[in-house]
Amino acid sequence: MPMDFARRRAALAALPHGVDAVLVTNPVNVRYLTGLDSSNAAVLVRADGSARLATDSRYIDKTRGLDVEVVEATDVAGELAAKGVGIEAGHMTVAVYNRLGDGLVALEPLVERLRMVKDEEEIELLRTACAISDQAFADIQDRIRPGVTEREVARVLEARMVELGADRPAFESIVAAGENGAVPHHAPTDRELRAGDLVTLDFGALYKGYHADMTRTVALGHVDGWQREVYDLVREAQRAGREAVRQGAGAGDVDAASRSLIAEAGHAEHFRHGLGHGVGLEIHEEPFLGPSRTGRLEDRVPITVEPGVYLPGRGGVRIEDTLVTREGGSELLTKTTKELLVL
Amino acid sequence: MPMDFARRRAALAALPHGVDAVLVTNPVNVRYLTGLDSSNAAVLVRADGSARLATDSRYIDKTRGLDVEVVEATDVAGELAAKGVGIEAGHMTVAVYNRLGDGLVALEPLVERLRMVKDEEEIELLRTACAISDQAFADIQDRIRPGVTEREVARVLEARMVELGADRPAFESIVAAGENGAVPHHAPTDRELRAGDLVTLDFGALYKGYHADMTRTVALGHVDGWQREVYDLVREAQRAGREAVRQGAGAGDVDAASRSLIAEAGHAEHFRHGLGHGVGLEIHEEPFLGPSRTGRLEDRVPITVEPGVYLPGRGGVRIEDTLVTREGGSELLTKTTKELLVL
Repeated sequence: MPMDFARRRAALAALPHGVDAVLVTNPVNVRYLTGLDSSNAAVLVRADGSARLATDSRYIDKTRGLDVEVVEATDVAGELAAKGVGIEAGHMTVAVYNRLGDGLVALEPLVERLRMVKDEEEIELLRTACAISDQAFADIQDRIRPGVTEREVARVLEARMVELGADRPAFESIVAAGENGAVPHHAPTDRELRAGDLVTLDFGALYKGYHADMTRTVALGHVDGWQREVYDLVREAQRAGREAVRQGAGAGDVDAASRSLIAEAGHAEHFRHGLGHGVGLEIHEEPFLGPSRTGRLEDRVPITVEPGVYLPGRGGVRIEDTLVTREGGSELLTKTTKELLVL
Repeated sequence: MPMDFARRRAALAALPHGVDAVLVTNPVNVRYLTGLDSSNAAVLVRADGSARLATDSRYIDKTRGLDVEVVEATDVAGELAAKGVGIEAGHMTVAVYNRLGDGLVALEPLVERLRMVKDEEEIELLRTACAISDQAFADIQDRIRPGVTEREVARVLEARMVELGADRPAFESIVAAGENGAVPHHAPTDRELRAGDLVTLDFGALYKGYHADMTRTVALGHVDGWQREVYDLVREAQRAGREAVRQGAGAGDVDAASRSLIAEAGHAEHFRHGLGHGVGLEIHEEPFLGPSRTGRLEDRVPITVEPGVYLPGRGGVRIEDTLVTREGGSELLTKTTKELLVL
């Protein structure tokens, strides 16, 4: 199924922003509205739904077949800017804004709001990205063993995702063994995995621009009592979070459904990040799930649920899935078991 | 040898910008001035050379041992902004600027100018990044053969760089076979390599934050007359460009030394990009070599020289090295032969 870019631009033009046209300069948003993946492009979307796309000579061949007017330019924003045009204030730099002159209107994020609710075509790409991630994890489990370094595990996992059809990894994979598991954003090091470690792997495939995101924590060799206890707690908290995800759920309520279990177990201070985030053309995008987040989830919103418990100096557990809101519930995209794997 | 961050900040504070302090928000520049690699950090450098670094809780552990004052904050720019402070107008968005309030002074790029001239410590990291790139290319030459796809070659080459110690590839590798070689920025596809193809590989390793960049074009099986002719032309043009690189050379003159040979051979319209660019903490940074570029190269400036000839529908040749300006000449960092390899 082809993407319906014209429908997206029409939805943008219909937004009540009080300007005649929007100059979209964020490359991710340009891609969303036109289909062009370019590091130097901008598109002007007018209130009547028509659009003019500017990009430089390197990308002109890629604009063939797009359903917008195309102009070749190096200064793509300058080519399209005009008095009374709205700009993406969250993307355009002060230097570009000052250069383009007076009469531009700074706008709140518009395209990001549209991008929250995905087309079925987008969900299908995410489904593939998640399937590749699941399969890669299954294929390299025998490489997660004592003596191998965190970096080696990350490299093997990322290479396998690409072999399975990923464009590339969706982000820099996290592989955190033993005490390193207590650092939520740990970057892989040359630390060797050891028997008795919990090992957290946070990874995902990028497929045709769409980002999968999943985390599993596995045990090596044997499982201590505290490890089992923390694992079971996080697994139940993750389940509660997933079960709270549905069309109409409050972003803060979903977070609370999961976090309350961790807090009741006395680990509130060991889970200090948000419960999850939207995924799509970016790895982190609207909406976000957290204690202070407001707003309700709409239908067809892909989102992660990723509670964790991190014990400084000892280790940690995080379990994360990518799922999509549906009426009355959700569709799970990352399907690897959440039982504790002892490798 | 450790990096001398205090010296860099002192050089920044000494720049005549007419403000009391500079709020540095570009993460690459924050890293350059403090050593902290963080996706959410900012540093205020005062005219007396003192500095205050803000980052969020995820990165606080990494700030230990840094020779600056550290404050934990989520809104890192907001934490440090004050009336009369200069900001990086080429990085700060309009939304952040408007939120931080009046009294900020938009500045031209300052840190980028400092970053052009590298310390010997930085050049040593680039030397390693280039050596990894050279070695990876040598190691995977037997994988460049008919029947293998562009994507597979890219994957094998990138995996080998990581095995050899790269943090990751410095950018998305280009592997362009046959007619695809006519597209300077071609992204690898599932096209299989065939006997008789020229294949262009543009790649490099990232090592401790520093980016290598090199390109070689190889032939598969046999070499047609036109292929040999274009290859020899580009090789001579690349040599002329390299020989023009030295402390004091004009950026436009270096470009002309190479481009004139291609133009004399009747291929001016088949070489439409600049001759090269600086490399360092970014893959493309100041200075740039091109027909309209002004300014002179200083000592210790790592830069690429990468002429190409691109024949639409037929193919292309590009040869690229990373080198460093020195007094009276340059130091070559990428050392793979530039004789035509027939694989």
